[in-house]
Amino acid sequence: MPKLKEECGVFGIFDHAEASNLTYLGLHALQHRGQESAGIVTSDGVNLHKHRAMGLVSDIFSEDVLAGLPGRSAIGHVRYSTTGSSQTKNMQPIVINYFRGALSIAHNGNLTNAKTLRDELEGEGAIFQSTTDTEVIVHLIAKSKEEKLVQRVIEALSRCKGAYSLMFLTPEMMIAARDPYGFRPLVMGKLGDSPVFASETCAFDLIEAEFVREIEPGEIVIVDEKGVESFKPFGEQKHSYCVFEYIYFARPDSFLTGRNVYQVRKSLGKQLAQEHPAEADIVVAVPDSGVPSAMGFAEETGLPLELGLLRSHYMGRTFIEPQQSIRNFGVKLKLNAIREVLDGKRVVIVDDSIVRGTTSRKIVKMIRAAGAKEIHMRISSPPTKFSCYYGIDTPIKEELIANSLDTDEIRKYITSDSLGYLSMEGVMKAVNSSKNVNGKEHFCNACFTGKYPVELTDQKAKINQLKLFGE
Amino acid sequence: MPKLKEECGVFGIFDHAEASNLTYLGLHALQHRGQESAGIVTSDGVNLHKHRAMGLVSDIFSEDVLAGLPGRSAIGHVRYSTTGSSQTKNMQPIVINYFRGALSIAHNGNLTNAKTLRDELEGEGAIFQSTTDTEVIVHLIAKSKEEKLVQRVIEALSRCKGAYSLMFLTPEMMIAARDPYGFRPLVMGKLGDSPVFASETCAFDLIEAEFVREIEPGEIVIVDEKGVESFKPFGEQKHSYCVFEYIYFARPDSFLTGRNVYQVRKSLGKQLAQEHPAEADIVVAVPDSGVPSAMGFAEETGLPLELGLLRSHYMGRTFIEPQQSIRNFGVKLKLNAIREVLDGKRVVIVDDSIVRGTTSRKIVKMIRAAGAKEIHMRISSPPTKFSCYYGIDTPIKEELIANSLDTDEIRKYITSDSLGYLSMEGVMKAVNSSKNVNGKEHFCNACFTGKYPVELTDQKAKINQLKLFGE
Amino acid sequence: MPKLKEECGVFGIFDHAEASNLTYLGLHALQHRGQESAGIVTSDGVNLHKHRAMGLVSDIFSEDVLAGLPGRSAIGHVRYSTTGSSQTKNMQPIVINYFRGALSIAHNGNLTNAKTLRDELEGEGAIFQSTTDTEVIVHLIAKSKEEKLVQRVIEALSRCKGAYSLMFLTPEMMIAARDPYGFRPLVMGKLGDSPVFASETCAFDLIEAEFVREIEPGEIVIVDEKGVESFKPFGEQKHSYCVFEYIYFARPDSFLTGRNVYQVRKSLGKQLAQEHPAEADIVVAVPDSGVPSAMGFAEETGLPLELGLLRSHYMGRTFIEPQQSIRNFGVKLKLNAIREVLDGKRVVIVDDSIVRGTTSRKIVKMIRAAGAKEIHMRISSPPTKFSCYYGIDTPIKEELIANSLDTDEIRKYITSDSLGYLSMEGVMKAVNSSKNVNGKEHFCNACFTGKYPVELTDQKAKINQLKLFGE
Amino acid sequence: MPKLKEECGVFGIFDHAEASNLTYLGLHALQHRGQESAGIVTSDGVNLHKHRAMGLVSDIFSEDVLAGLPGRSAIGHVRYSTTGSSQTKNMQPIVINYFRGALSIAHNGNLTNAKTLRDELEGEGAIFQSTTDTEVIVHLIAKSKEEKLVQRVIEALSRCKGAYSLMFLTPEMMIAARDPYGFRPLVMGKLGDSPVFASETCAFDLIEAEFVREIEPGEIVIVDEKGVESFKPFGEQKHSYCVFEYIYFARPDSFLTGRNVYQVRKSLGKQLAQEHPAEADIVVAVPDSGVPSAMGFAEETGLPLELGLLRSHYMGRTFIEPQQSIRNFGVKLKLNAIREVLDGKRVVIVDDSIVRGTTSRKIVKMIRAAGAKEIHMRISSPPTKFSCYYGIDTPIKEELIANSLDTDEIRKYITSDSLGYLSMEGVMKAVNSSKNVNGKEHFCNACFTGKYPVELTDQKAKINQLKLFGE
Repeated sequence: MPKLKEECGVFGIFDHAEASNLTYLGLHALQHRGQESAGIVTSDGVNLHKHRAMGLVSDIFSEDVLAGLPGRSAIGHVRYSTTGSSQTKNMQPIVINYFRGALSIAHNGNLTNAKTLRDELEGEGAIFQSTTDTEVIVHLIAKSKEEKLVQRVIEALSRCKGAYSLMFLTPEMMIAARDPYGFRPLVMGKLGDSPVFASETCAFDLIEAEFVREIEPGEIVIVDEKGVESFKPFGEQKHSYCVFEYIYFARPDSFLTGRNVYQVRKSLGKQLAQEHPAEADIVVAVPDSGVPSAMGFAEETGLPLELGLLRSHYMGRTFIEPQQSIRNFGVKLKLNAIREVLDGKRVVIVDDSIVRGTTSRKIVKMIRAAGAKEIHMRISSPPTKFSCYYGIDTPIKEELIANSLDTDEIRKYITSDSLGYLSMEGVMKAVNSSKNVNGKEHFCNACFTGKYPVELTDQKAKINQLKLFGE
Repeated sequence: MPKLKEECGVFGIFDHAEASNLTYLGLHALQHRGQESAGIVTSDGVNLHKHRAMGLVSDIFSEDVLAGLPGRSAIGHVRYSTTGSSQTKNMQPIVINYFRGALSIAHNGNLTNAKTLRDELEGEGAIFQSTTDTEVIVHLIAKSKEEKLVQRVIEALSRCKGAYSLMFLTPEMMIAARDPYGFRPLVMGKLGDSPVFASETCAFDLIEAEFVREIEPGEIVIVDEKGVESFKPFGEQKHSYCVFEYIYFARPDSFLTGRNVYQVRKSLGKQLAQEHPAEADIVVAVPDSGVPSAMGFAEETGLPLELGLLRSHYMGRTFIEPQQSIRNFGVKLKLNAIREVLDGKRVVIVDDSIVRGTTSRKIVKMIRAAGAKEIHMRISSPPTKFSCYYGIDTPIKEELIANSLDTDEIRKYITSDSLGYLSMEGVMKAVNSSKNVNGKEHFCNACFTGKYPVELTDQKAKINQLKLFGE
Repeated sequence: MPKLKEECGVFGIFDHAEASNLTYLGLHALQHRGQESAGIVTSDGVNLHKHRAMGLVSDIFSEDVLAGLPGRSAIGHVRYSTTGSSQTKNMQPIVINYFRGALSIAHNGNLTNAKTLRDELEGEGAIFQSTTDTEVIVHLIAKSKEEKLVQRVIEALSRCKGAYSLMFLTPEMMIAARDPYGFRPLVMGKLGDSPVFASETCAFDLIEAEFVREIEPGEIVIVDEKGVESFKPFGEQKHSYCVFEYIYFARPDSFLTGRNVYQVRKSLGKQLAQEHPAEADIVVAVPDSGVPSAMGFAEETGLPLELGLLRSHYMGRTFIEPQQSIRNFGVKLKLNAIREVLDGKRVVIVDDSIVRGTTSRKIVKMIRAAGAKEIHMRISSPPTKFSCYYGIDTPIKEELIANSLDTDEIRKYITSDSLGYLSMEGVMKAVNSSKNVNGKEHFCNACFTGKYPVELTDQKAKINQLKLFGE
Repeated sequence: MPKLKEECGVFGIFDHAEASNLTYLGLHALQHRGQESAGIVTSDGVNLHKHRAMGLVSDIFSEDVLAGLPGRSAIGHVRYSTTGSSQTKNMQPIVINYFRGALSIAHNGNLTNAKTLRDELEGEGAIFQSTTDTEVIVHLIAKSKEEKLVQRVIEALSRCKGAYSLMFLTPEMMIAARDPYGFRPLVMGKLGDSPVFASETCAFDLIEAEFVREIEPGEIVIVDEKGVESFKPFGEQKHSYCVFEYIYFARPDSFLTGRNVYQVRKSLGKQLAQEHPAEADIVVAVPDSGVPSAMGFAEETGLPLELGLLRSHYMGRTFIEPQQSIRNFGVKLKLNAIREVLDGKRVVIVDDSIVRGTTSRKIVKMIRAAGAKEIHMRISSPPTKFSCYYGIDTPIKEELIANSLDTDEIRKYITSDSLGYLSMEGVMKAVNSSKNVNGKEHFCNACFTGKYPVELTDQKAKINQLKLFGE
């Protein structure tokens, strides 16, 4: 089983006349969480109906397709994965028909003991259809001897470690579940009397649903015709909200744990300006994700914000590179530097993070080629040194430039005149600038610090195995 | 023949080993000029090869498709039209096989006497395949008794009135032609020794071609194995560059008539701030087109620029609206207002133009619903009162809100607290702020003033005809 | 313009509530006349609607597609052509919009002066879209100065030489026309009060229309709201019905010029048995076309008819031949010899014709390999020595084995023990066995005799041209 | 689990350079055994590769698709099922990845205890992907604790009752298995040194493989790099070859249990003529399946065989029936009666069987409408009174006309003047006419007699259940 990293978004709506239409709109609003495939499963009270395909939500779901998804309840999923080929078999929501009827599941997150559980299940004769860790949960539910679905779900989740924000759908019932650490977001709202669930509040805005509250870490919420019921079977844990959702992943208009994401990002930029000011003429953002922090940086420093990099919004899946190689081709398709803005200027470039460093290097070179006199790169997060195992698609740590180079070596590699990363303390100041938390909230910052809140079972097993074989 | 309005982009490259690949990239950079269909025609020296389809450039042209377009010369076209159904028969470039061989043509602009010419040609037995005015040019060329292609092209164009920036391709030759008024842009560059042509310079940036000069109004440039030759067969005219390219249509990173478009737009915002300042707390752009002028407005006034409207970049072709109608559905799919930014604020909203007023009204209402205390709408161009007949897709004037309402009536309709349009003089100041032109350049501003530089032959004929029938 | 040979079928129905559905069924019954592409054009009284595609009728026309073809009148076309690539541009019916409105045309046959007329039209500036001779008729109609459509059609057809059975459709009118020689069939019927037209009566059987009469050679029939009117503008000609329709091309259940095709074929087999009896044990048909004559041969000789060759009815478009070459691959996919039937037997094989000889050779070898002791090949027509220019797809005469080899040489090539062709007199006896014609009917037998009833204008021009260049 | 009836064909080839190409040809030859879906799975020695789709073999497998199926071994499957919707999830071969690696399976036949086994497996937590009984075998293999695949297969099959001719493929090995009763055919051959397997010998003829022998009832044949090995783990059973393969299902050119199918069918016709002669003028076959027995009937009686019914070979999936209903529409699309042959005649119609009676009734009416004076229907098998549970798709017995009506009642229903069925003894005489079996071979004739050789476990369970609920 190849290591599978995924980014995803989930949505659910219970007992509404237009369940499939609204789920499709909800997924459209969550499209930024996964652009590779999407799917919707509906319940008409007796059967489940599904449609899943590779591609964008708006390409997959036509009026005809939605008309073929009848019923008053629905869950949906958008997904991005880094495994090479288009993996249609890994599309979600998963739907199975087992002894006790039909069951569908949509998952955002990554289990850290998926491989270990899978080996055990397969040893007992279980046949897997996909390579997703989500299917492990399905098999655990199918094997449970408990009578009630919620008990089977609890039994199954009690064996799973890691990150999960889950939506389940059966013909009669919907279940939302979030792991005890709360790595990935999951919010609850209502549209009229219908309960709705989503990874982010921006999905509620589009369908005009009202935000009610976050699903709490470790909470399992069951919705059926009798109403909404909440369980907390796993006891208390120190929360580990993912800080990277605020830095990069979530949509700027979303509201997570009481914070507006755009405002957090602007604060990150202001904090960054305080920690790493620059003698410069203009501030330029790397669009789109660097824009809010560049606005904060410009506001804090008083330097003018200029559109020095233009982003193309007509990106397709792949582009054919001519044989006469084009300098910085991959970046150039997406970004163009405006010479008239940059020529002769000392430029501050603001971006949210540096992963492998190759894109930053191309951007710096492109800006230099457009005439910039000095280039000061500013990053609104600490150096990304460690891989995420909880649902953000970062490469293995060997590919992370900050894992092997220090800041000045990175600066040399990307060829900028200076480079400043925001400190971990600075991040937390910005995150908490708009909310008085009294130290009650905790965040996972493993990608910056290497402190993993939940044991990496599969990863360890692999390391041990490698040791055994002397590798 | 229904009135057909089109926006388009054209591209051409002569004698390069990767003609089709580079044309595809060129069209990708010109995608903003037309998202409905795209096409490439190549010459292998003996035959022409074409591929055209509805959709975006990156969806239409795969590696396989490009491999099926052999040859060292190519022209390409992107197109948007307002005629209802998907008109595959109107896709460009047009390719014909006539008495003298194969000929391809790609057209940006609109002829104002197309219907008159078509009636004449059909009366003589000509059979048209499309409803485009471009096909009129093709038939005029086919009927010409001249021996040399360039003479046949000149004879044909001498009968055409209106706007045209044209690329022609035959198995041996490429021709670029721009109407005597120069309504639509057309630039020439070179990539190594290969001549290239494009609607805008941003296409050159992507393929790393060097900008050489604009094709002059009234100029016909012929490229064949003997080299590049220029003709000016139609005498001098007072130029009429389209001012709306600077205000809205061209890409911010393009360089037209010696001006960078982004900088012109930022100047429009500054000029707007001088003409129509506002007592406000924040400036918010209507993304993406309103961003540069909002930056100018904020810089001129010193007010903070905030991300109060977030744009979704995953727009598909159509969206299914649920029956439980969603307020401002069409706009909401594209834009979301961020309550945490807008709540309790006095907000300046900057946009480039108001057409029918319906979108502006939805935006104002959406911002008001997000808690804004006051809303001051600022537009970086004069009221759009007249329809364009030279290649910009504006609705008929009866649908233009500024054609029937004055500024205060429009303000009431869109429900803003104040509304300010930039004056025509202000536009010209901004356009010329970055260039000393000494009054030598002229612009078409017919959409604001109703002064049409070239006679609207078909339009008049229609009016007369309507009069005859007492309508 | 490459020489284009086509086989086709046409259908038309006027003023019926289910025009498109019935045309689709009519084309299904005519599918044997052309399996490459099919099309239907309907009139709703104001506009024409078309759908054409490559493939079989039953694959092209779904319920949805037919629902998109509204109106009470329709014409249809099935087509097979020998030009290599899939020529979507040559699909029929052709639809044009010209000065006088919309016009559609479906053509079965081949003009012998198409190239000559096309050269003339293109010299005057006409632009052709296809390489079909049918488009020549369209341009001639468009150029005519006559007011009434029927007069324009007559003017156009008066310039055309060769074979044509034509269906025209305009929003208000349907026209059926057959060339003065009557090469290709065209019959008229009625379904209730609605006039129907088809290449063969089998199309009437399926939709339960009543056969009324043949369209006479040189007749033009006009149908509009005023009724049915007949014209004979071209004077009398000696008829030249295609004899090959009876031998091979028409469907056995069709009724042409007062004869049932199956019964003519069975008579051909009886006549063949009289002319070329054989000392043999069994008679085996080459299915499907050789079955009726084999039945006649068996009945006449008293020899048992056996299923020695089995035909597969699941043939697709193309088949991938393995590299380990399979003997007689092309024939083997379609036919399999049954060893248990053939082993040790003296076998008479009956087929309708030999074209290149390669298939016959493979069949003889396959039967020999299955154990046959002697093989006596019998052909129910004379040697095919000349190419058809009137609508049957025969190869150029250089590829016809009987053009260069005599009967005994052919026998050696196909490796049979004997070979007998039916004589021309025998064919005529069989054709007239079921009808007393008193010598009043004449048939075109050019493919056997080289006597071409209508001048081959293009062919001659080409020969002269080749002479000029010393070829 | 709905009752699923299937007809199928299987093919396999081991260790040949063109495994996928030859499998595709083999499936083409077996197309008559299933036209709904087809699939090929290949092994490259390490991985399995699959392609399956709905449709005909020649439409599914292009050169590209076959190039994507690398490896020297392959199995293939064609399938027809009667369950309403297109069941893509039930396509075969099935491929799974389980604890011990990849495994593929292709199945012809039906298990009679599939539901019982499935209930048991699901109760233990197994999750099924399809509704096929084949998947039961897969799960039984996955759960087996045996080390060697062949032992796991034996353990799994020892639990299965009913009909199965199976092909298994793993990366290293191929297994062919036939149930102890031998209901469905399965033959072994060789192509050069490569072992090949197929449902019928006609697949060997096409690829020029040599027939070696039948896989014996109860035999399991394993092929790997070490060679071919045979097992007979299940002891001896009285064979139950399906007699309906000879009457209708197998291809006439196939050679089953030492008999040529065409010759058996011709004998059935002769036997029928002896049991039920008729005073008539002509014999007419219902094409294609009635042709051999009609030839036998004609030969035995000396009556002339005539082509009175013509079959169309261009049948698509579905046909739209016009609202003006056409008499006998369904049959008419496929068959047309030739009036010139039938008018005024006393006609013997020969067909292989009568199922519901509706088609026979339409045929009789169509022939009567074409003028026949008397119609004598002759059927070359006994009345079909019972449903098949071993792999032939017959409707439930309530829909079989012979289950509720006697012969004279059926004659009245189909409106013929007389009706004669061949006796069971007559069938056996014909089947054994070409082979001296000395009573050693036994056939399943349950569809005629109701004597089911293998217990119908699921069927019984269902009946008991229904009884419990008083139905």
